[in-house]
This record gives sequence, structure tokens and C-alpha cells, in this order.
Amino acid sequence: MSGHLAVIGLGPGDTRFLTGEAEAALAGAEILFGYGPYLDRVPHRAGQERIASDNREEIARAGAALERAAAGARVAIVSGGDPGVFAMAAAVCEAIEAGPDAWRAVELAIVPGITAMLALAARVGAPLGHDFCAISLSDNLKPWEIVERRLDAAASTGFVIALYNPISKARPWQLGAAFDRLRAVLPPSVPIIFGRAVGRADESVRIVPLFDADPAFADMATLVIIGSPETRIVERPGLAPLVYSPRSARSAS
Amino acid sequence: MSGHLAVIGLGPGDTRFLTGEAEAALAGAEILFGYGPYLDRVPHRAGQERIASDNREEIARAGAALERAAAGARVAIVSGGDPGVFAMAAAVCEAIEAGPDAWRAVELAIVPGITAMLALAARVGAPLGHDFCAISLSDNLKPWEIVERRLDAAASTGFVIALYNPISKARPWQLGAAFDRLRAVLPPSVPIIFGRAVGRADESVRIVPLFDADPAFADMATLVIIGSPETRIVERPGLAPLVYSPRSARSAS
Repeated sequence: MSGHLAVIGLGPGDTRFLTGEAEAALAGAEILFGYGPYLDRVPHRAGQERIASDNREEIARAGAALERAAAGARVAIVSGGDPGVFAMAAAVCEAIEAGPDAWRAVELAIVPGITAMLALAARVGAPLGHDFCAISLSDNLKPWEIVERRLDAAASTGFVIALYNPISKARPWQLGAAFDRLRAVLPPSVPIIFGRAVGRADESVRIVPLFDADPAFADMATLVIIGSPETRIVERPGLAPLVYSPRSARSAS
Repeated sequence: MSGHLAVIGLGPGDTRFLTGEAEAALAGAEILFGYGPYLDRVPHRAGQERIASDNREEIARAGAALERAAAGARVAIVSGGDPGVFAMAAAVCEAIEAGPDAWRAVELAIVPGITAMLALAARVGAPLGHDFCAISLSDNLKPWEIVERRLDAAASTGFVIALYNPISKARPWQLGAAFDRLRAVLPPSVPIIFGRAVGRADESVRIVPLFDADPAFADMATLVIIGSPETRIVERPGLAPLVYSPRSARSAS
């Protein structure tokens, strides 16, 4: 008697980023699990149970949701952004792999959402317009040396880089260390985009050259995009400048 | 008398991937520009003009749309997936930078969408669950040596890689060359995911080890995801296997 588990991407902040598929999945769930602030974004429905948990309890949340689904319920886990990008989908897969056989029988639907880098890119132009990568700066789950190697490899071969989880109270120095590392590889003029709470009422965006990039411009709610040497800024009188990475690259620099 | 230009991401295939913001932007446009098959996905509205153009005419399409917007119209360009990922947003920025001053005065809104790699990842589990990158295999706009350097850098430092534009009639050998290159760096067991027409009626997904990856499994409508050495497959009796990349990495291999 196996039920159903949907892992739903809410996109960043505002409900205007919700897809039709995500709305339908939210409406069809009997039980919603999620980090409290994400659950708060979902309108209440009569008869729908809600179970909020802390940000760091991803595996426990996945297990609790799978338990209810395996018992026959229609369960949903809500995730900010896209569930497959540094969010709940991988935690659910990990829990299924490590868990009882009954969890493998649960019908699983991952519902994609607009991840933060797409929303921030859209807000400023097209900084992800050519090859790009996404790196989580958190070293809770991987050694810092891996982050360093990936930053070096990506910057030195011309990728634009989106930095997720750039900074937190428990990880205060990593973003500064990343900027220092990038300054050794990239021109000082490369545009750095700090996007905080994109798509929410308190949204703020700041664009500075790498030379002036300061970790103090970021907090837990910030996504940082590091331009490539080809990334350009187009000034517009009376409007915000556009930042974009051209589709063409001229030579293997 | 400057109008408004929206560059709208339709997401992959089905309308269930449309966001509320994209629906509103489509409804508010007087003129829609786009590649024919993308325009065909948008329901007709009375009084709305439509101008279809070929896939390769991105800069011409951007210019024509900017021209109409600068003359005061509410114009939209529709884009498959997300407009900022190998799509129309960068072309519009390029056109604005190179064009007349009047184009810089056009109010521009980029409306993000679900890009193909997010839809395919959701379909199979969470293959983008740790650091990942997106590379266009097209060498129309960049030298092939740049693609090679980026493939080497990304694979050798443990990124998952999403390959956009993997193959076409005019570019028949690049995907095979990429697989050969990746075989020199990655274990033969690394999962390769071929997703064709994800989210459409004729969707097909194939998962094979790198050892067996064949360019013949892909066409113009295919996105290819290359796992990292950490990417795992979870078998599920009676259900499709899950492919995921765990959030944790144990050592800088």
C-alpha cells in the first residue's frame, strides 16, 4: 500500500515563479514537509497537514516524508528554488538508497523550479549566457580543497560561476577565500553580481568588479555570480545596467 | 515613446512548466516573436501579432523585436527552457549593446523558465545534486579547443556536466569526440543520461555507463548529462532507477 512523494520546487521567493505543475502538486498533497520559511510561502488548504523542520535536518525530513508515503499517504516536500540544485531531491535519493525496501516502492515525483541563479541572471541581463557552473561554497559536506580545485578549474577555463551558500555565521571566511583565489586567475574588472532575496519584497542586487568584491556584501540569502573575462556591462541611461556573457568566444585564451 | 520587451522562458515542452510570471507576460504582449516551434506552444490570443523566424536568426530576431519595442509596442520574444541559458537573453543584450541608443531605452524584462537540465534531472532523480556545469557543445560560436579545455577541467575536478546542443546535422562528430575525451578522465561506469523531448508526449530517457555511450543516442532535441565519479544509481523494483549525485564528497580525489 505505497503512496506518493512529490519533491516540489517553489522557485525563489514570490509565487509568480511557481509552475503550473508545482501548484497542482501542492494542491494534491495530504501532508507537506519542509523548512519552515518555505512552508510559510504555501497557502494553507483545509485538511492538509504541515510538518516544519529545521534547515539542517534534510535527511531526517526526507526519511519522515518517505515513511508517511510508504504508509500510503500523498506526501510533498517543499524546497526553495529547484529541488535538484543543492536542495532536497538528492537528500531524498540518499534516504531511499539507505532506507528500508518499502521506500524504494514509493512513487517519487521531482517537480522542478526556478533555481536562484536563473532568477538572478534574469534580473540583471544574461550573465549565464555562455558556459557556466554552479558551486556550493559550503564545506559542511565536502573538503574545502575540492571547492578550491573547482574554482580554479572553472575560472581558468572561462566558465561563469554561480556560488550557492556563499556565507553563513558558521562559515564566515569561505567567500573571502574564494574571492582571493579568483583574483589570482581572473582580471580585476570581472563583474561580480550579489543578489539577495531575488524575487522577494526586500530584494537587492549589487554589481561590482572583482577588485571591489567584499564578502560583507553577502549573507545566507545571497547568490553570487562571478563573471568570466568575456562578461560585459551595458550602461543604459535611466535604467539599470545589463550584465551579459556573449554567446561567442573568440579564442582559447 | 519607448515600449517594453519581455524575453520569456517557456520551459521544456509542456505548459505545466510555465510559471505564473511567464503566463502573465505572454498575455500582456501585443507582438510575439520567436522560433516557430516555440511560438506554436503558445495559445493564440485575439489581436496578438506573431512573427516566427528560423532557429539561427537570433540576432536578427532580437533586433526586429527591439525595433518594435522602441517604437512603443509591448513586445515579447519566446524562448524554450530558460532564456538566459544558451537562448535569447544574451542575443538581446548583444543587440542592445551594438544597436541604436533608442534600444537602450527599452524596458527589458527577462522572465526565467525551467531549463532543460533541471527538467531532465527531475525526471531521473537528482544527478545535479552536487556541483555541476553546463556546456554548449556547439562550436558555431566558439573554437572547439575551448570546449575541450572546459570538458577536461570540469570532468577532472568532479563536476557533473550538462551538455546542451550535443549534436546536429551540421555538427555530427562533436558529441563522439566529447565522449572520447571524457573516457580518458572518468571511470567507464559513470552514468550518462540522454533525455530527449523531456516533458513532451514523445519524451524518452536512456541511462547508460560512459563505456556504452553512443552519439547515436542523441539528436538535436536531446540534453545529455554526464555524471561525476560520485554519481550513483538506485535500482527500484517495478520503478525506473534513480540517478543521483550525493551532496557529500569525501576527499579531494
